[in-house]
Amino acid sequence: MSFQVALARCAAETDALLDQLLPAEAVPARRVVEAMRYAALGEGKRLRPFLVVESAALFGVAREQALRAGAALECVHCYSLVHDDLPAMDDDDLRRGKPTLHRAFNEATAILAGDALLTYAFEILSDAATHPDPAVRLKLVSGLAKAAGFAGMVGGQMLDIEAETRIDSVLSDISLIQSLKTGALFRFACEAGAIMGDADPAPLLHYADKIGLAFQIADDILDVESTPEALGKATQKDRVLGKATFVDLLGLDEARRRAAALVDEAIVGLKEYGEKAAVLNDAAKFIVARQK
Amino acid sequence: MSFQVALARCAAETDALLDQLLPAEAVPARRVVEAMRYAALGEGKRLRPFLVVESAALFGVAREQALRAGAALECVHCYSLVHDDLPAMDDDDLRRGKPTLHRAFNEATAILAGDALLTYAFEILSDAATHPDPAVRLKLVSGLAKAAGFAGMVGGQMLDIEAETRIDSVLSDISLIQSLKTGALFRFACEAGAIMGDADPAPLLHYADKIGLAFQIADDILDVESTPEALGKATQKDRVLGKATFVDLLGLDEARRRAAALVDEAIVGLKEYGEKAAVLNDAAKFIVARQK
Repeated sequence: MSFQVALARCAAETDALLDQLLPAEAVPARRVVEAMRYAALGEGKRLRPFLVVESAALFGVAREQALRAGAALECVHCYSLVHDDLPAMDDDDLRRGKPTLHRAFNEATAILAGDALLTYAFEILSDAATHPDPAVRLKLVSGLAKAAGFAGMVGGQMLDIEAETRIDSVLSDISLIQSLKTGALFRFACEAGAIMGDADPAPLLHYADKIGLAFQIADDILDVESTPEALGKATQKDRVLGKATFVDLLGLDEARRRAAALVDEAIVGLKEYGEKAAVLNDAAKFIVARQK
Repeated sequence: MSFQVALARCAAETDALLDQLLPAEAVPARRVVEAMRYAALGEGKRLRPFLVVESAALFGVAREQALRAGAALECVHCYSLVHDDLPAMDDDDLRRGKPTLHRAFNEATAILAGDALLTYAFEILSDAATHPDPAVRLKLVSGLAKAAGFAGMVGGQMLDIEAETRIDSVLSDISLIQSLKTGALFRFACEAGAIMGDADPAPLLHYADKIGLAFQIADDILDVESTPEALGKATQKDRVLGKATFVDLLGLDEARRRAAALVDEAIVGLKEYGEKAAVLNDAAKFIVARQK
């Protein structure tokens, strides 16, 4: 199976699972569930669930269990997009090629749907269907909470906002911001596979750190080189906000070189898994080669 | 020990624990932690942690463990206040006698600090210090997620916002809204004690339902009869927003009678615990007698 087929298959499975996990009917507050579905279903590469599933596959974890952990992580990712897009944050109108949630519904609903998606992630993880061992499920809860919280993703988002008011950002600043804002969920995605497989997470965490940074450099390159139509979201936002990017600090050529080097380092770290890591190796390459 | 002393003692212990759990130093995103501390520390009755601690005490659960579960619940309660106060939601300037978080900091920080408090609640619960048994910690995670999510508190808040645009609210509507918006966390508070004590939660859930509703009726009465100075938050907001309250639908006298009856029903349900439930009985009485 080619990498693109494997990625598309996981995206479809994740979408189907989220569709099933988010009941459109029979809840009193139907509107908030409709908003959650708007934010979580539909287009999306589902890269984080894919990393969970492929990391878990290294250790023979049942695919349906890995998909549940991936769906929980995707709920957190989608909530973070909804809240980041709010007028008080990045004030974005377009996401995945359609109006952002607060544009399609309203601001209050977007805040609540984001809150509910974040909360639901922990409900999904704590359910016995995710893994038969309560201790494993608890490690997933703890790992996701740390990755998503003030010392992880939310902390990165806070630093990112603060960086908008500064003009002296240096490479170490934006590397730190991205390691929290984007990197923390990538780390958890890969770590989750090891947690579920009761395996040493160290090689996967190394891999996650490298591809997380490569992902963000690639994002900055796309932000300069692509169009809103191709990306399904606004481009050049960082420039408008006066935020330094990897491209600003490194230049386009060096940014490309750096991203490629990170992919090589990521792949080297998975050597011990041999052929079993082929899909993860392809995922690392995809992360810098993608056009959206 | 009198009820008031017991309540104040638990509030002080909860505050001290939250102070310790929220590190002011040594995190990259210091500002978001400062905002979390602003929202979570300081004044507050800490009624929900008190219910956790006193429910847990019925079953001999270690107080320091119950306090951790209570602190996690308080993080969720405080996050919900922060997000409810946002301009896109209730647009409040005053909370617990000081400027709301988005007034003291800014909107983006308030959104992120709320997100981080919610996330942190699950990190606190999943830590071994909360209970030695992973299966118990997992039940707490699951119970809190359900209580706080789209089928609980957030669902109630969504219905509450939708009710603002309707003028035909009836008693069953606002009873449903309040059973979700306020009641779900009261239920979890009392259930948590039974979970930690490996006991049947049914009597405590009955108690929680009664005092949750009584609490909201008392809130509606205070909203009419008290002042912003005494309450530390705006009054008569519901009237301004055109939202129906229990006082509107029942009248003041009947609202008072109904609240008192609920307190009696709550107390009857705890009979099997005998003298051990004395503090919870006092808590039920306090909930309708409080002046703020």
